[in-house]
Amino acid sequence: MTPEPVLEPRRAAPGGPLVRVRMTVAYDGTDFHGFAEQPGLRTVAGSLRAAVERVVGHPVTLVGAGRTDRGVHARAQVVSFDVEHGVDLAALRRRVDRLTGEDLVVGAVEAVADSFDARFSAVSRRYRYTICNRPVPDPLLRRTAWWVPEPLDLRLLRLAVDPLIGEHDFSSFCRRPRGTGDRVSLVRRVLDASWEDAGGGILHFWIEANAFCHQMVRSITGTLVRTGAGERPRPGDILGVIAARDRSAAGPIAPPHGLVLWEVRYPDTVGLSPPSSAPML
Amino acid sequence: MTPEPVLEPRRAAPGGPLVRVRMTVAYDGTDFHGFAEQPGLRTVAGSLRAAVERVVGHPVTLVGAGRTDRGVHARAQVVSFDVEHGVDLAALRRRVDRLTGEDLVVGAVEAVADSFDARFSAVSRRYRYTICNRPVPDPLLRRTAWWVPEPLDLRLLRLAVDPLIGEHDFSSFCRRPRGTGDRVSLVRRVLDASWEDAGGGILHFWIEANAFCHQMVRSITGTLVRTGAGERPRPGDILGVIAARDRSAAGPIAPPHGLVLWEVRYPDTVGLSPPSSAPML
Repeated sequence: MTPEPVLEPRRAAPGGPLVRVRMTVAYDGTDFHGFAEQPGLRTVAGSLRAAVERVVGHPVTLVGAGRTDRGVHARAQVVSFDVEHGVDLAALRRRVDRLTGEDLVVGAVEAVADSFDARFSAVSRRYRYTICNRPVPDPLLRRTAWWVPEPLDLRLLRLAVDPLIGEHDFSSFCRRPRGTGDRVSLVRRVLDASWEDAGGGILHFWIEANAFCHQMVRSITGTLVRTGAGERPRPGDILGVIAARDRSAAGPIAPPHGLVLWEVRYPDTVGLSPPSSAPML
Repeated sequence: MTPEPVLEPRRAAPGGPLVRVRMTVAYDGTDFHGFAEQPGLRTVAGSLRAAVERVVGHPVTLVGAGRTDRGVHARAQVVSFDVEHGVDLAALRRRVDRLTGEDLVVGAVEAVADSFDARFSAVSRRYRYTICNRPVPDPLLRRTAWWVPEPLDLRLLRLAVDPLIGEHDFSSFCRRPRGTGDRVSLVRRVLDASWEDAGGGILHFWIEANAFCHQMVRSITGTLVRTGAGERPRPGDILGVIAARDRSAAGPIAPPHGLVLWEVRYPDTVGLSPPSSAPML
């Protein structure tokens, strides 16, 4: 009997030794259907994977630090993947950057230790949410800031963030993954949360946590904006909103376009390179 | 003999008493072919005039404070036009704003003295040019900042602006209107010129003058960037570049998308309203 013919994959998976690569990317999320790959849709991960595969000539599996939603931007998203030994990383950076379009820009590309994983090695993620708090919107900020015409009271906004800091079950602020019931933990540790007055009615809400659940930053921002507008919840109610572990206790979800994944932190001992906080600047 | 029939215009020009209106607008210039009307093209003045005429129901002649080029933005452009008595200006603002699209936003609308002319009453225009001076571009700034990867020396940039201040013939920095020879004066008075370091590699060049010639801000900015990059002209050469009255003495023209018409100033005695510096914020 003749053996069945082996169907060769169009491109063979790499057989030799591999190098783990850490790549920092920035994107304007406006024209992407989010970070995570979805068949037939333009996504950040899909665009990046296709570009990397085209340059290195073999399939790669791409891991991202934060699964940003549709319309959310990134200043320094981090991804990791493996390539065959001997790939010129400077050329990889340049060529992938050329393939991905001007709304998806490749920053630092570096070889890291095999143990590095863009998602699981990360110790924290930092997001920035921008609000344009003016009576009239700014057309130059319409893709990157949420226009809120009602005057917001910065004092109330600042009082309201303190209860968020620390380890909490954020069920009130998260979209629970479908069909998971109570099995998935929504406990997260918020390391920092603060408001910055950038002048001219521009407010930045900064939040850093070990990790975020789905829609957590936007749900917190939407709730805080109600507080800042003098409505409910009041600053003193925020702890109760958290304790309720019930989405209906929180406010509406802020739109995605004000949100930027600003930075992902890794322990200095992971990888072979300096900490990820500087590469884009 | 019967008299020739008089052809009625489709919409009659207003016959009764008129009210002069001052309107402040902001726009993202990306998708406009500049401010000035051009047949068959989407322009700021054309879009505004069509929207105002649709709301008031009679033809208007629209005057703008600054004729921004294609791709140049505005935070507070000022236009003036006449409408029939009795027009509700709050409704005019709201309805014109709804008609013009989200990249052209209507701010303050107010009745002013008949002597007010958005162009000729203005005592100065202030522009801001933004440069993103980083090794890697920022995709969120690609429509509003010029990406210059070579490191710029802020000290050189600052030394180079001082000679610009004052009254000069800016022929070296201006595109002379075609066919005008030397008949048109290109003497302008620069009231202020300075660089602001906004952090993170973002530099703002601010310039205010009684008026600007065509492409003057972009030509000055392009020249200063060569200086800041350590090339020619050196800061000490700028006075010579001005004195040459020759375009070839200046540097290249900066791209339009970094430029914003920030503010137009009027004497407090013109019009019936507070100075124009505040309405958009």
